[in-house]
Amino acid sequence: MIPVKAYAAQSPSSALAPFQFERRDLKEHDVLVDILFSGVCHSDLHQARDEWGGSMYPMVPGHEIVGKIIKTGVQVKKFSPGDLAGVGVMVDSCRECRPCKNYMEQYCAEGMTGTYNNYERDRVTIAQGGYSTRIVCDERWVYHISDKLDLAGVAPLLCAGITTYSPLKYAGVRPGHKVAVAGLGGLGHMAVKFAVAMGAEVTMLSTSPSKANDALKLGAHHFVLSKDAAAMKKLESHFDVVLDAVSGNHDYEIYLKLLDVQGKLLVVGLPKEAPRVSPFELIKNRRCILGSMIGGTLETQEMLDFCAEKNIVADVEVIPMHYINEAYERMLKNDVKYRFVIDMASLK
Amino acid sequence: MIPVKAYAAQSPSSALAPFQFERRDLKEHDVLVDILFSGVCHSDLHQARDEWGGSMYPMVPGHEIVGKIIKTGVQVKKFSPGDLAGVGVMVDSCRECRPCKNYMEQYCAEGMTGTYNNYERDRVTIAQGGYSTRIVCDERWVYHISDKLDLAGVAPLLCAGITTYSPLKYAGVRPGHKVAVAGLGGLGHMAVKFAVAMGAEVTMLSTSPSKANDALKLGAHHFVLSKDAAAMKKLESHFDVVLDAVSGNHDYEIYLKLLDVQGKLLVVGLPKEAPRVSPFELIKNRRCILGSMIGGTLETQEMLDFCAEKNIVADVEVIPMHYINEAYERMLKNDVKYRFVIDMASLK
Repeated sequence: MIPVKAYAAQSPSSALAPFQFERRDLKEHDVLVDILFSGVCHSDLHQARDEWGGSMYPMVPGHEIVGKIIKTGVQVKKFSPGDLAGVGVMVDSCRECRPCKNYMEQYCAEGMTGTYNNYERDRVTIAQGGYSTRIVCDERWVYHISDKLDLAGVAPLLCAGITTYSPLKYAGVRPGHKVAVAGLGGLGHMAVKFAVAMGAEVTMLSTSPSKANDALKLGAHHFVLSKDAAAMKKLESHFDVVLDAVSGNHDYEIYLKLLDVQGKLLVVGLPKEAPRVSPFELIKNRRCILGSMIGGTLETQEMLDFCAEKNIVADVEVIPMHYINEAYERMLKNDVKYRFVIDMASLK
Repeated sequence: MIPVKAYAAQSPSSALAPFQFERRDLKEHDVLVDILFSGVCHSDLHQARDEWGGSMYPMVPGHEIVGKIIKTGVQVKKFSPGDLAGVGVMVDSCRECRPCKNYMEQYCAEGMTGTYNNYERDRVTIAQGGYSTRIVCDERWVYHISDKLDLAGVAPLLCAGITTYSPLKYAGVRPGHKVAVAGLGGLGHMAVKFAVAMGAEVTMLSTSPSKANDALKLGAHHFVLSKDAAAMKKLESHFDVVLDAVSGNHDYEIYLKLLDVQGKLLVVGLPKEAPRVSPFELIKNRRCILGSMIGGTLETQEMLDFCAEKNIVADVEVIPMHYINEAYERMLKNDVKYRFVIDMASLK
């Protein structure tokens, strides 16, 4: 077994604290990754505090992992020791169902294996995440990372990146398209960067006027205050795509109305209260609401390659491991631009 | 001007009663249609009673019209006197916007001209519908009808037919697909017939066990009681397409759950209360909710040709004009299989 240092939550109410555990010895297709950076996703906080129910403890959160391969199983083909590597939101799946065979493992009929807070396929071992020094993972769920990119900024691509890239790609965003992004946080700021890189004319929608400058700095072409009813009225039937990354409670109608004929509302935000949908706004313009959850293994690699080509990384604030509890409190106040990333050297 | 006999509502609370008015003389591209049958759509009742607001009186409802051409304008190319012809939910549009240029006139940027309860493009004349002996309409919004089909059964194709055909077609329903239809009324019974004709394996979902036999008679391969939680649980992630033709209040979650990876919930029912959507159910399986409103002029002709080829008509109960108020009361009790159609000879 492989000893690992980590930070873990021991219960919904306990702060994250130092924790040691062991990872499995490498199986034939496994790689051992020395973790360099680990992004801090809002869902880490939700799960550490059991806000979605069913949390398993001790829990080592973290599913935005960047590191270096230090050892490979005998059958590993994709990697050699020394290669940069990433691990995202999942580390396994049934591999047999239709979605798995189509490399859409996130929709595995038996359920994917989440990187943490989930049982491994043996249904006994609890998977543990990236707030740790090393991880063992089947190579299928490990990705190549370009050495041209800032590694700390790459970490959030493994969740915030693929979560927004996948629906924009599925919706066919291309030059000439008008795309709006609602909600400027970890997901929203990546969505703006991707939509711009795909050639679209991008409008940032936000309830906060203070974000106007930030949106333009990220590459958005326009900024509209979503509380400004007159400005929103002018945008009715205007967009091909609206990406909704708002996690606060809201109805979909405000964004649906903005969609032109055959326009698509891409849902990646997860408000607690189920949003309402006016069927009259839905049938108008043949509008559609499309949900999307991270992305499959092939698409995740495609996204990382796209980022290397277009020089895209997340905007991050690098923190030491022991800062994590303070980082969670600041996340709750949206006091981060736009992702905390743990420098794992601080734990070694 | 052309004198016309009709039945009209004079106010939200008055019963429909005999009414006479005049239609315009034929313009170059107009045809004059002698109306033989006029379908009775639930939206006729909503609008006659001003349940959606903004109703204009006097109102001659009716937008499922089948008849015979008796005169053509000098520039008319599609029709000759004696031809069978149909008129549906719209009779005009701006003709200049992108949707109009793409023959998706129902999504006209300026708003389509509804067949009744709407101003004509002159913004002065109130359009009057099919509960009348004759109608004048630009040939673009008039369709060819096969003489092989039962004409009374054809009338509802002009609204209930195209409203369900268009989203099933847009969703790409084809042999091998599993399709569920929720709500067995005017729309639902057409959806079952179309999905079967497109080669899908079709399941009827209904809250009423009494509809099981009817569903199978219409061609559905399976019938499932949607109140049966265990049966519904078994169908989770089962369907490629669910068509929701339920007009009673309900949340979308019950149907969303049934969708397989990249499955589509097609919304054509219009409940009064905006349904809720769980974002967790939406992101699972990359599900989508797609609204759809009737269909464009080219697609309406395509649907009518498909019906002629596949021998599809609506199941109807033919009534005389003076029975309309009683028919409305029976519709409110869902006491019709599945569409009333007025034999317009009864008014001549």
